Amino acid sequence: MLIIGEKINSTRKSIDRAVRAKDVEVIQEEAKKQIEAGAHMLDVNCGTLDAQDEPATMEWLVRTVQEAAGVPLCIDSPNHKALAAGLSVHRGKAMINSISGETERFANVLPLVKQYGASVVALCMDDRGIPASMGQALEVGTKLVNRLLDAGVPVEDIYFDPLVRSVATNPETVLETLQLMEEMSARFSGLHFVSGLSNVSFGLPERRHLNRAYVVLSMASGLDAVIVDPLDSTLMALAYATEALLNKDRFCMQYIRSYQQGKLKG
Amino acid sequence: MLIIGEKINSTRKSIDRAVRAKDVEVIQEEAKKQIEAGAHMLDVNCGTLDAQDEPATMEWLVRTVQEAAGVPLCIDSPNHKALAAGLSVHRGKAMINSISGETERFANVLPLVKQYGASVVALCMDDRGIPASMGQALEVGTKLVNRLLDAGVPVEDIYFDPLVRSVATNPETVLETLQLMEEMSARFSGLHFVSGLSNVSFGLPERRHLNRAYVVLSMASGLDAVIVDPLDSTLMALAYATEALLNKDRFCMQYIRSYQQGKLKG
Repeated sequence: MLIIGEKINSTRKSIDRAVRAKDVEVIQEEAKKQIEAGAHMLDVNCGTLDAQDEPATMEWLVRTVQEAAGVPLCIDSPNHKALAAGLSVHRGKAMINSISGETERFANVLPLVKQYGASVVALCMDDRGIPASMGQALEVGTKLVNRLLDAGVPVEDIYFDPLVRSVATNPETVLETLQLMEEMSARFSGLHFVSGLSNVSFGLPERRHLNRAYVVLSMASGLDAVIVDPLDSTLMALAYATEALLNKDRFCMQYIRSYQQGKLKG
Repeated sequence: MLIIGEKINSTRKSIDRAVRAKDVEVIQEEAKKQIEAGAHMLDVNCGTLDAQDEPATMEWLVRTVQEAAGVPLCIDSPNHKALAAGLSVHRGKAMINSISGETERFANVLPLVKQYGASVVALCMDDRGIPASMGQALEVGTKLVNRLLDAGVPVEDIYFDPLVRSVATNPETVLETLQLMEEMSARFSGLHFVSGLSNVSFGLPERRHLNRAYVVLSMASGLDAVIVDPLDSTLMALAYATEALLNKDRFCMQYIRSYQQGKLKG
């Protein structure tokens, strides 16, 4: 399970302040805490800045985070210029968050994926928006992955995001998302699956329980990467436990190691 | 999801003491706490007593628990005389824990199921013990359920227990158990599935994470009853969340009600 720490995101007020003030210490502290908690990659997002300021800030953010945390980053912006700026100073193999089937976005982001040999989050949507049905989602997802493959992106560099919705307004969304991942997995051997957790529980109280259960359910259907708060120790422990149960953790070695490192306290 | 509270079990030292001393207060307190926490039924087990003492004690235990908690009980013993004694004083529709494909057990327990119109936990095993493979488990389970149906037990009174093993020694056990439930569900419409949580995590540290993840995974494959500690509020919250995600909780009403009752704190 690839754990991508979500906390360096300027929609959080403390990060917005730190990014605007170029506060190295706050950012590096956020980076280190997430790595210590078990994150393998860190998402970096400074999308609350004005579009003309975002590229230079992303460059600063990537340098600052990588100086403190020797891990690859998931460079996260709807602004392809910010993505390009971040990639230009990134060390190692970056992940781009994200491409989609939207005409403009696809055209702007694909060259960056190719130029930097990055992996990429592929959102299951196109110019019509988020698919309205399972059948449409499967069609949109299949077309998007095929276009990436045709452009020479290796399948193992693609992290497909099925774009789960809120279960409060779309009661079938999780069942459909699980099915979509299983169908896509059958169509594309080696394809990765990633998901954020903010949507599924939107509009409901005590969201962490829904988010945690969603991760466990999704892992059984192929989810192998998540963008999460790695400091949610209950969630992390559940993810390790689920890998052991699904026989993706040989001899439960990672589970036992996590225990020895004091990471199963949640 | 049918929550069966597991705490009135004499393998716990405090319960063993209370049962031997006929301490009404301790037993009734354990019953009330579990009901308040959300249990719909309570398992009662006094199997640490000598075989000749168990029936009379089970009778006392059933009376004592039902006096305090107006719920049906899951009468739990390998001793059919203790089952019979408990059933003789039970009010409402009891559950018998358990029957299996073992010749003697089947012959002794079936008449009780019929006489009392009880529901019954059906363990997936026979005279050869616990099945050694998925194929054998499916054969043993199918035969057992068919024998119960042939004897006139309604399918909705049968709670099939797939008998998961420890993932530490049987890394495929959870995947096989999920598949077994799905296959049995396809063969027997209306069949219920139940599981205890003590086996899956046996031999591993911080077992609660494995138990919780196992419940979530199993619910996606049909589990609709569990024998658990309802005071594990994180587990209970995860179970409510999972029902919402799997569209088994219309308009998330139970999830929201649990929140309003302060039950999602875990």
